[in-house]
Amino acid sequence: MPDPVYTADRQIWRNGQLGEGARLIPEETAIALTYNGGTYAVMMGTPQDLRDFAIGFSLSEGIVQSPDEIETLDVVELDNGIELRMWLKPSSAELVNERRRHIAGPTGCGICGVESIAEAIRPAAIVPKGRTFSPSEIMTAMASMTLLQQINIQTRAVHAAAFWTPAHGLVALREDVGRHNALDKLAGALAQAAVPVADGMVLLTSRVSVEMVQKTAAIGAPLMVAVSAPTALAVRTAQAAGITLAAIARSDGFEIFTHPERIAVPQTPGVAEATHVA
Amino acid sequence: MPDPVYTADRQIWRNGQLGEGARLIPEETAIALTYNGGTYAVMMGTPQDLRDFAIGFSLSEGIVQSPDEIETLDVVELDNGIELRMWLKPSSAELVNERRRHIAGPTGCGICGVESIAEAIRPAAIVPKGRTFSPSEIMTAMASMTLLQQINIQTRAVHAAAFWTPAHGLVALREDVGRHNALDKLAGALAQAAVPVADGMVLLTSRVSVEMVQKTAAIGAPLMVAVSAPTALAVRTAQAAGITLAAIARSDGFEIFTHPERIAVPQTPGVAEATHVA
Repeated sequence: MPDPVYTADRQIWRNGQLGEGARLIPEETAIALTYNGGTYAVMMGTPQDLRDFAIGFSLSEGIVQSPDEIETLDVVELDNGIELRMWLKPSSAELVNERRRHIAGPTGCGICGVESIAEAIRPAAIVPKGRTFSPSEIMTAMASMTLLQQINIQTRAVHAAAFWTPAHGLVALREDVGRHNALDKLAGALAQAAVPVADGMVLLTSRVSVEMVQKTAAIGAPLMVAVSAPTALAVRTAQAAGITLAAIARSDGFEIFTHPERIAVPQTPGVAEATHVA
Repeated sequence: MPDPVYTADRQIWRNGQLGEGARLIPEETAIALTYNGGTYAVMMGTPQDLRDFAIGFSLSEGIVQSPDEIETLDVVELDNGIELRMWLKPSSAELVNERRRHIAGPTGCGICGVESIAEAIRPAAIVPKGRTFSPSEIMTAMASMTLLQQINIQTRAVHAAAFWTPAHGLVALREDVGRHNALDKLAGALAQAAVPVADGMVLLTSRVSVEMVQKTAAIGAPLMVAVSAPTALAVRTAQAAGITLAAIARSDGFEIFTHPERIAVPQTPGVAEATHVA
């Protein structure tokens, strides 16, 4: 299996001087996801936590509803990549053949524009109401990621997705050069650990595109918090899916784009008292 | 056509205080690329410069070798997205049907893991030797992007790809929520403008994954410069394609991962003289 971190020799031009030396950069590997002998997708990703990735991708794409519909899962090294070779139980196998004909992720096979767009932005699942969270829980959760981003500490060039609950703290964190893959790996890890997803939040180091919301909805998490900004379509999709979307999360706070009712902002007694006095 | 920038109302939690107001965020739209009535891919992207995107995508994917193989190109607004509806000349139409059967971008239709990986990481074209560039040309080129990133100035959340030559300065810049799309839009713009690509450099605000190198190779540019880090596979692919890959480009310099012979570092007479004196 390739190492997820690669040591590259390179030259450095800084402040008008030429130097040289090594830099740690992330590996990137072609990963084919195959079901019952046929390829569903090839993703470029980080060669780590690949069983989680296979399970999470299968769940996110709606190919299986639970990990035990995957009868066997083998991680097979090939010359130019890795195959995640899955065989499904007979009932799921019919479904994947149907979906494969109809489209897989972004790519259609001869279907028309209207149909293929409908498939690409199919409505996200609606998440249960779950519990509320305080701003300090959100800030604590985000801060808890930093030290566990092992590949990013070395390379400063990969994304992480994590899950945090007030009761358990950081339950799982997964990294990948692709932010979608990191979230799929997290989904796979959570599904195997039987984590109570309604009690926690998905944390992302990246921007939030619509697919990140769709995957969070598939996980069933009520709250997602991201370091960077969401797209407008991500906001609309989170609104429709009942997900609280917080973003631009930095050390001093965050912004809430949808369903703020899940975030329990503490009353500010100073202000209230001042009003009374006046 | 949707506006590429959207004004979102949101709440703000910063420094222990709750506020509210508007933030500009990027729109994200499902864009179906269809050829002769069948969908080849649906990409999520910024609804701007879509003719450039259609042409650049078609070139990057190898569906056409030149823009004039696209007989007609219509940008069609649909309920949930936009269709880039292309009809190809008969010779190209046969090719796209063949490729559609065999795979489109990342997704296979029933072919096996080995085949689909080979298709996903097919060898990049080898670029011509072209000219050399000085470090100060590279720094000037990168600095020239900032003021032209109109969507990013508003949202701080989209990528840009640009092309710069010593003779003409910044020839074109395109933006998108997806870094691959930004580069495809740039490729389309360059192909229509008949820019001498061997004389310039591709500039990227993003990280460099293998697909960014493949697209640069398809453009035929000898040098690519990126703000963030490359993956190891991107480095290997640039090496094989004869592309000079510079990255981690900041205001004080950059790092050179492949083919440094195209970067003409000025001699440092101070050091040479000191040696003589000693």
